Amino acid sequence: MTVDAEASGAAADAYTASVVGGTGFTGGELLRLLAGHPNFEVVQATSRSADNMTVGRSHPNLRGLDLRFSDPEDLESVDVLFAATPHGVSMERIDEFTEAADTVVDLSADFRLPEADAYDEWYDGHESPEYLERAEYALPEINRGNLPGADLIAGGGCNATATILGLKPLVDAGALGPESGEVVVDVKVGSSEGGAGGGAASSHPERSGVVRPYAPTGHRHEAEIEAYIGLSVSFTVHAVDMVRGASATCHVFPDEPVSKGDLWGAYRDAYADEPFERIVSGGGGVYRYPEPKAVAGTNHGEVGFELDPGNRRVVVFSAIDNMMKGSAGQAVHAANVALGLPETAGLEFDGLHPVGAP
Amino acid sequence: MTVDAEASGAAADAYTASVVGGTGFTGGELLRLLAGHPNFEVVQATSRSADNMTVGRSHPNLRGLDLRFSDPEDLESVDVLFAATPHGVSMERIDEFTEAADTVVDLSADFRLPEADAYDEWYDGHESPEYLERAEYALPEINRGNLPGADLIAGGGCNATATILGLKPLVDAGALGPESGEVVVDVKVGSSEGGAGGGAASSHPERSGVVRPYAPTGHRHEAEIEAYIGLSVSFTVHAVDMVRGASATCHVFPDEPVSKGDLWGAYRDAYADEPFERIVSGGGGVYRYPEPKAVAGTNHGEVGFELDPGNRRVVVFSAIDNMMKGSAGQAVHAANVALGLPETAGLEFDGLHPVGAP
Amino acid sequence: MTVDAEASGAAADAYTASVVGGTGFTGGELLRLLAGHPNFEVVQATSRSADNMTVGRSHPNLRGLDLRFSDPEDLESVDVLFAATPHGVSMERIDEFTEAADTVVDLSADFRLPEADAYDEWYDGHESPEYLERAEYALPEINRGNLPGADLIAGGGCNATATILGLKPLVDAGALGPESGEVVVDVKVGSSEGGAGGGAASSHPERSGVVRPYAPTGHRHEAEIEAYIGLSVSFTVHAVDMVRGASATCHVFPDEPVSKGDLWGAYRDAYADEPFERIVSGGGGVYRYPEPKAVAGTNHGEVGFELDPGNRRVVVFSAIDNMMKGSAGQAVHAANVALGLPETAGLEFDGLHPVGAP
Amino acid sequence: MTVDAEASGAAADAYTASVVGGTGFTGGELLRLLAGHPNFEVVQATSRSADNMTVGRSHPNLRGLDLRFSDPEDLESVDVLFAATPHGVSMERIDEFTEAADTVVDLSADFRLPEADAYDEWYDGHESPEYLERAEYALPEINRGNLPGADLIAGGGCNATATILGLKPLVDAGALGPESGEVVVDVKVGSSEGGAGGGAASSHPERSGVVRPYAPTGHRHEAEIEAYIGLSVSFTVHAVDMVRGASATCHVFPDEPVSKGDLWGAYRDAYADEPFERIVSGGGGVYRYPEPKAVAGTNHGEVGFELDPGNRRVVVFSAIDNMMKGSAGQAVHAANVALGLPETAGLEFDGLHPVGAP
Repeated sequence: MTVDAEASGAAADAYTASVVGGTGFTGGELLRLLAGHPNFEVVQATSRSADNMTVGRSHPNLRGLDLRFSDPEDLESVDVLFAATPHGVSMERIDEFTEAADTVVDLSADFRLPEADAYDEWYDGHESPEYLERAEYALPEINRGNLPGADLIAGGGCNATATILGLKPLVDAGALGPESGEVVVDVKVGSSEGGAGGGAASSHPERSGVVRPYAPTGHRHEAEIEAYIGLSVSFTVHAVDMVRGASATCHVFPDEPVSKGDLWGAYRDAYADEPFERIVSGGGGVYRYPEPKAVAGTNHGEVGFELDPGNRRVVVFSAIDNMMKGSAGQAVHAANVALGLPETAGLEFDGLHPVGAP
Repeated sequence: MTVDAEASGAAADAYTASVVGGTGFTGGELLRLLAGHPNFEVVQATSRSADNMTVGRSHPNLRGLDLRFSDPEDLESVDVLFAATPHGVSMERIDEFTEAADTVVDLSADFRLPEADAYDEWYDGHESPEYLERAEYALPEINRGNLPGADLIAGGGCNATATILGLKPLVDAGALGPESGEVVVDVKVGSSEGGAGGGAASSHPERSGVVRPYAPTGHRHEAEIEAYIGLSVSFTVHAVDMVRGASATCHVFPDEPVSKGDLWGAYRDAYADEPFERIVSGGGGVYRYPEPKAVAGTNHGEVGFELDPGNRRVVVFSAIDNMMKGSAGQAVHAANVALGLPETAGLEFDGLHPVGAP
Repeated sequence: MTVDAEASGAAADAYTASVVGGTGFTGGELLRLLAGHPNFEVVQATSRSADNMTVGRSHPNLRGLDLRFSDPEDLESVDVLFAATPHGVSMERIDEFTEAADTVVDLSADFRLPEADAYDEWYDGHESPEYLERAEYALPEINRGNLPGADLIAGGGCNATATILGLKPLVDAGALGPESGEVVVDVKVGSSEGGAGGGAASSHPERSGVVRPYAPTGHRHEAEIEAYIGLSVSFTVHAVDMVRGASATCHVFPDEPVSKGDLWGAYRDAYADEPFERIVSGGGGVYRYPEPKAVAGTNHGEVGFELDPGNRRVVVFSAIDNMMKGSAGQAVHAANVALGLPETAGLEFDGLHPVGAP
Repeated sequence: MTVDAEASGAAADAYTASVVGGTGFTGGELLRLLAGHPNFEVVQATSRSADNMTVGRSHPNLRGLDLRFSDPEDLESVDVLFAATPHGVSMERIDEFTEAADTVVDLSADFRLPEADAYDEWYDGHESPEYLERAEYALPEINRGNLPGADLIAGGGCNATATILGLKPLVDAGALGPESGEVVVDVKVGSSEGGAGGGAASSHPERSGVVRPYAPTGHRHEAEIEAYIGLSVSFTVHAVDMVRGASATCHVFPDEPVSKGDLWGAYRDAYADEPFERIVSGGGGVYRYPEPKAVAGTNHGEVGFELDPGNRRVVVFSAIDNMMKGSAGQAVHAANVALGLPETAGLEFDGLHPVGAP
């Protein structure tokens, strides 16, 4: 804590923050959230490529922000450092990061998985495995109890987050477990998931209007799902025509028959008190089930379900904004919990209607 | 046959055709295909709402066509009548249709299912069940042998067509059967599937950028899939942001382990000689698996697959243009087979690249 | 004022508000803004079609809001009534509206034009012309001085707002006037401008990907532009593929040559102190000129310009979110000014990056 | 002519063709058109980056084509060489091209402008100015008489083509000329215009949903418009959310008042006998004016107009597919004319309805 709460006007608790890797999409989203957060003051945003340029040049929504990128080699001391760097960078620089900040929140995959072995299997190994035990998974719906006081927080992957939020209530209710039958998860994601870099496949002419199987099998987020809810899932990811959003459709075959009432019970038990999850299942109007559009720009997640009586299938829909609940919003939410701030601080935006391909 | 092949210039065989229900999207697509078909001459297109207006007023791509809609109550005698009317109309008017034409090709659901019982279960019953036995399913890849000489041809549903084309090779190869484990089919479709009518959910502001679960369970095409390939599938349909296209992702768990080579064998056996199906599975470039964009506007279908070794899953992708291979193109293809014409006549268009949200 | 500012916690000044016509797009946007506004409490939202349903059923972003629509015939007394009804309704019900509220903010065209004659020319006449003189135009950048204490405020049209914001600095600087040469304004708008109703032209299949001249000439907003900045413009509006947004490109031929420095001077004089207008003109990065995407969901407007030396042309770009700065945001901004609240209260959202077709 | 017409089956006249630069978007479009053309046989398609790969790997619609890219340094002798290389390549290699082929059709800007001076002013000079006089402008509507027998044909720019097709009838009718008042041309184009390369501004997240002023002033196509219809225009180009398409809205102020009848007369005089231009102006239905969607994938152009009586303005709309009428289609059309083939050979495709963002 860097300021005297008594002397401060707006915020009882005020923290300094930095964003390492500020030109990328999630870096920009962090800057947006922190700039509007009552308890954070951004004192540094780094970028190698845009050093000394205004953040508004990279993120037009932040044109009004008086902040310039600085050299990532020269980290300032802050209360909380948010790392929005490509996978692999944080595991290399984690000593520097933890030295510069009391709390490090890493949005990459580098500290998501609890076991070093998993990095050997799914990634190219891990350079700082000694930190894995210290790292706490950021998703409060899964790990709220362990976040207060954490000094290294690892943000979840967007597809894994959508899937975990969809399936965890069934696991907690005992309807699903490691011995259950097949769990098929069919994910649809927007183009922002590919980051700001791009390439031919991400160019507008090639990427518009697609339903493109970009990870038919073997997506790394499978490891994360298994680690946090103990399920081995059959996972396939498609790119579709939106920019923000991840939608996981989970096809589940519970061991024992479940009723619609059982499902409502399981999801209400899990999410009735959660500030960001809402259950959307049937009802009237145009938006009867979870949709990424309905949560675009927000930290909300929507879950819903339907029962297919003929084959004992439960279909679960889980929709988030991959950049928010699936990344930057989740990180700020976790930081709020870690620091004892109100959970929704800085995350109050409720989204727009109508909105196109958000 | 209405003209002397010897005396005719362009086409050895020439047939007169009519399109009943010409203002809808599939009606327009039929008119486009028949106008460019070397063996058909469209002598009537009917529309109640646009009676006496040019077809180009409804379908701007046909502005150059010198044809006006006429009253659907006043059917001309033709060789082939294509019915592109809403579900329920053909079963009411089938006596008239068969009287007006030697061959009737119906694009609605009215004669798709072989059993009247299925209409009781999935639709609102059937008014002319005596025709069901005469009707031949239009999809040549499934039913080529029975089409020649057929006088009533029933076009397949678009989602069912995509699914059947994806799964049939596995059934034929013995890798899948009624006793197999779960078969999950997750379909993504474009907005043209909803037809030209529209409503709030189909309006541009509400429909843009969606990943919308519009048939979580209980979609009628399940009945069609079961009828033609004998599989009871767990079927879910999502609306996504494209106009044309249907993409079926089929998650299959074969009884016995299969290899990549087995899969290539099964699909090559099924489709190597098919004029419209192509296998797209891995390889390089941007378009490595089936995509609706790659077949938009064409009668082609693409199938591809991937093996998930950990859980014995096979993921099959099948992509079509719902208006073409999934409707009007399939109908013309079936008519070609029925009349003994070259199968690809009038269906040669190979599509565009790049193309947006087709 | 309905509460004692001293006794209130959060807000020094608190006002009750109602939204008449809450199911439409601008009605929903008003509800979103007022729900997040520190000084307003929404006590009524009316809807004939959705009477007694939750507002979240119509506007999925407001699913968390505990509010139901009520009958529009039964207006509650409030401090401020916002009318988001179709054109023609407010002029019929204005007596009721002014009786129910101290301040009426009307978002329709019904009180926008100062002269009844103009309603005869551009609309179907006016039923309550006696109110026209009392009405104050809502756009603070044009009419800030007359808003405090106003009891009837008339929101500007979205296309007119974009145009006025683009051209007014040149008028004020003396570079443009009624005697100037041609002023061509070419506007591009999103589909939300058509409202929630829809029809064939607004359906997703027909509206996607368009560049559609929907008002080649004779758009009613010409009257508004002439009324407020004294210019007769050559005005053409195109529908393009986005949901939110209006972008006016103004091609201007000043009487006397102007320099780039003159232009910067004129726009800085006009907008340097404005809380919502920003000048975006050249510079680096992807977003070098005004773009609707960069202000989507916000009350910001962007203006920029370029000089075409060969033909003495100045090209001015002005971009807004048609639902915000062009409608609901402008209305709340005007209400803030009218009531003496901070101008940006409730309008702080800065938008998203990246965002698709917002 | 390379084959004996008597002995050949399908085509009376058959020509060999090559495409230099086959991996780009226009190269792919040429390959598509030539593969379906009754009079051409493609014997070579070159690509440096994709040497020896199938053309279907770059262009998924051509997966069925049995053709591989070859080294561009090793040109085969052909009747017609189509160059679809980036600007600057053809002027360097023109000696080689003309040696390899009887007829060279260049789709770049390298031979479009008749004067070398113009290349100094608008481009970086010209390396082979001696060829400029030999080059014939490809657009048959402008230059049909000079194409037969031409050995170097220079394809028009897409924005210039749309503009020229829109304005030429008014010039020919004497309503517009060099001494006329301002002519403002406001163009909207799709992302394919930027080619297959891409960069941050062309990435899907940044490019989706834009109305982006990418050439506010000083677009090179101004030179082309002036060269071919003698008008100096005030030209501005916007990127909008589609892949294919260019739409030019021309705001014209004729010297003398014109009537609607005059306009119809001028456009009918110009285009009544043209195989690819159609006049679309008012009338009913959804598509009442020219729209890029209505011609996507085709070589058609649409023109329409409206009269703004108050200010003597004529608004002209001209829509094309930038890849077809604005590039590859125009090139094939010109080659047809040059070789004395039927003008529409290989260009019969009439487009799709509905289609999304084509």
